[in-house]
Amino acid sequence: MNASEFRRRGKEMVDYVADYLEGIEGRPVYPDVEPGYLRPLIPTAAPQEPEAFEDIINDIEKIIMPGVTHWHSPYFFAYFPTASSYPAMLADMLCGAIGCIGFSWAASPACTELETVMMDWLGKMLQLPEAFLAGKAGEGGGVIQGSASEATLVALLAARTKVIRQLQAQSPELTQAAIMEKLVAYSSDQAHSSVERAGLIGGVKLKAIPSDGKFAMRASALQEALEQDKAAGLIPFFFADSFNFNPHKWLLVNFDCSAMWGKKRTDLTGAFKLDPVYLKHSHQDSGLITDYRGSNQLNEALLQRINSAKKIHLVPCHLRDKIVLRFAVCARTVESAHVQFAWEHIKELAGDVLRVEKE
Amino acid sequence: MNASEFRRRGKEMVDYVADYLEGIEGRPVYPDVEPGYLRPLIPTAAPQEPEAFEDIINDIEKIIMPGVTHWHSPYFFAYFPTASSYPAMLADMLCGAIGCIGFSWAASPACTELETVMMDWLGKMLQLPEAFLAGKAGEGGGVIQGSASEATLVALLAARTKVIRQLQAQSPELTQAAIMEKLVAYSSDQAHSSVERAGLIGGVKLKAIPSDGKFAMRASALQEALEQDKAAGLIPFFFADSFNFNPHKWLLVNFDCSAMWGKKRTDLTGAFKLDPVYLKHSHQDSGLITDYRGSNQLNEALLQRINSAKKIHLVPCHLRDKIVLRFAVCARTVESAHVQFAWEHIKELAGDVLRVEKE
Repeated sequence: MNASEFRRRGKEMVDYVADYLEGIEGRPVYPDVEPGYLRPLIPTAAPQEPEAFEDIINDIEKIIMPGVTHWHSPYFFAYFPTASSYPAMLADMLCGAIGCIGFSWAASPACTELETVMMDWLGKMLQLPEAFLAGKAGEGGGVIQGSASEATLVALLAARTKVIRQLQAQSPELTQAAIMEKLVAYSSDQAHSSVERAGLIGGVKLKAIPSDGKFAMRASALQEALEQDKAAGLIPFFFADSFNFNPHKWLLVNFDCSAMWGKKRTDLTGAFKLDPVYLKHSHQDSGLITDYRGSNQLNEALLQRINSAKKIHLVPCHLRDKIVLRFAVCARTVESAHVQFAWEHIKELAGDVLRVEKE
Repeated sequence: MNASEFRRRGKEMVDYVADYLEGIEGRPVYPDVEPGYLRPLIPTAAPQEPEAFEDIINDIEKIIMPGVTHWHSPYFFAYFPTASSYPAMLADMLCGAIGCIGFSWAASPACTELETVMMDWLGKMLQLPEAFLAGKAGEGGGVIQGSASEATLVALLAARTKVIRQLQAQSPELTQAAIMEKLVAYSSDQAHSSVERAGLIGGVKLKAIPSDGKFAMRASALQEALEQDKAAGLIPFFFADSFNFNPHKWLLVNFDCSAMWGKKRTDLTGAFKLDPVYLKHSHQDSGLITDYRGSNQLNEALLQRINSAKKIHLVPCHLRDKIVLRFAVCARTVESAHVQFAWEHIKELAGDVLRVEKE
């Protein structure tokens, strides 16, 4: 499918989406199918030849829709609301087109920066304490997770790492396993099952505090459990330094957008970094520190020239003690002319680097 | 934004997306911004009044695009390919409109069933051994994860749970911590950092097997490590009963779609279920087992009538020992008329249940 066909099919899809949502009240909210309904309706293996786009679109009403539970039907009162709105769908279309993976600032600065600033906006709307905001120089801040279950797990793992490091700093002879055996996290006995699952994944005890007659957890019950556990030599470790809620349930944002804030960003980032020392050397994450010599130094200088020129974009990797410039052919639309252009450009900049080296 | 405005704005967005991708070669592949560039360009808090749609769209080129690393530029040779295609973007639009959360078969049968059958198609295309396919009665099968990092973590946690349960079945006096302290997982020393991170999260040792001169891991080196570790009383536990690759890198599927297969589905599902006994009672996940009495039985009968009639859809929950029918107002378009209709319908069916009870 080329751009011109996408323009046509995309507009048809926009109408299909609008028709679907305008007519959703007329569809049965819960499907009338038995487990296994779909397999006999389609071939047992992928077709060898491509099918016509019309046939694929027709299959949506014939094969998919009969098996859909319509979460956006006004007769759907099950589970929980999944937010959905037309503006959010437009935003998703744009995100799909940009299609970047924002795992670091450099991987797409607008991603990281917009997330940080929007999480500040949202935190202010919720009147979260200042400590949870990133601001210009704060230690706190927000990050978007896929689900509240993920946020709970991330918070528990960060807390686990923090307490293990603290205790090992005090008593270097303590093993991780010896500490983990004594760690206890706490939740209400009414907490979602994902909280118990986080304890299971994290390999720590999770104690459910009995709730009162109104299903609320009482501070006094928590206090009692804490004192009992400390007296028994256990180590309570999981408290509320973080806050999470789901805009994809409450704020018309399409799934997935679970908003999580922490008072100390480095508690989260540090827990999952494999070499915390590295954080001290660089605010970016090029993977480079500055004491390489010889061909590594030349490669580093070349990479810097390439990425400063901004005509192409590369990242390095380490092969044992060597810095290597990786050339990955990425976009679907790369032609050999693009690769040849890149190669000439790299050769020219490499020549410059070698000339500077000689001087 | 109503459906009619979405039809207009959606079609404009389709054109914007096509224009962006057709013109991407003309944009600098790597942005010319410094960390913190975005914050001064926008207000410090969300506006009190909504802004015009045109103003928001204009901000994309003015504020966002200058900070985007263009992963789909043909001059992007960094990191790895992120697959993207027009058909995948159309599919995402449809998914956004359906907007269901497919956490169980009943939550939207088409989701689970299409995923299972498509993972069989894909597994056949890769010529995976039969054991990895679900088929009609297989024990294996595929599941879509968000990323290969997630798949690695899921596989490691499932293996950890399995070995802990096996060893505790043999020696009930062994604690989880005592077992975990001895567990060792293995990877090549060239494996992605997410593998080491999975070990860190899982709280188990991860041993990097030295690769050879061609950066390949040798079976003999693994064998040697296994024997050493067993002799030292450790427990090797993490082997290849699963397979994963990223269609969102290789197969033109937009992020995120990481395809993971296992030889035994229950190794994965069982590891994260909190009450494995429950699995034996029910293939669905209504949370109901059949020995409730009194008002619970009536509630269960009522729920069954409601969901069989398919005019509205509800799910139950447990409040301590009571089965409760939850009525959650979910869709953005729910009016009081829908709620009143639902209430009349529930009252009518409740009357039927009570009449049957009396007879």
